[in-house]
Amino acid sequence: MRYLAEVVISLKPVVNDPQGLTVRAGLHQLGFAEVSEVRVGKHISVEVDGDSEAGARQRVAEMCEKLLRNPVIEDYRIEIRPSREASPAPPA
Amino acid sequence: MRYLAEVVISLKPVVNDPQGLTVRAGLHQLGFAEVSEVRVGKHISVEVDGDSEAGARQRVAEMCEKLLRNPVIEDYRIEIRPSREASPAPPA
Repeated sequence: MRYLAEVVISLKPVVNDPQGLTVRAGLHQLGFAEVSEVRVGKHISVEVDGDSEAGARQRVAEMCEKLLRNPVIEDYRIEIRPSREASPAPPA
Repeated sequence: MRYLAEVVISLKPVVNDPQGLTVRAGLHQLGFAEVSEVRVGKHISVEVDGDSEAGARQRVAEMCEKLLRNPVIEDYRIEIRPSREASPAPPA
């Protein structure tokens, strides 16, 4: 079974985000005065094969711990669901 | 009313994603052989004030069109909900 995991890597709330500040300044300059805060992070979509959704989620969490996020400054969260490209079409 | 909009900026499916390929190679090297595809995009969270959720979503879509995404190579999607920092606490 194939799953699509969407991983959002965001800076921890205590960490400064100069990129977010720059985007906010740009939005204000364009007239979007209603914007109060902008934070910029990464979105990583990962297609994985696995026996169960829980098992696949566990593996993706390991990927985050080992490679995808920097534990000093970043948090992560994972959303996972069966991939639309889940199974090859059955033979006609 | 304050809303939290989460904007995901992703490369269009037809666009090459060398960063995603590099991440996938790294995951394979670490033993995550079940990974078939990785795509890397941006996640931008925007706090906005607005009269309604629909109105706020419309404004965030304008921000995407004018600044946040590159229409040649990127798609975007928006999820929006009332911000947890929505209203100042009522005076005790």
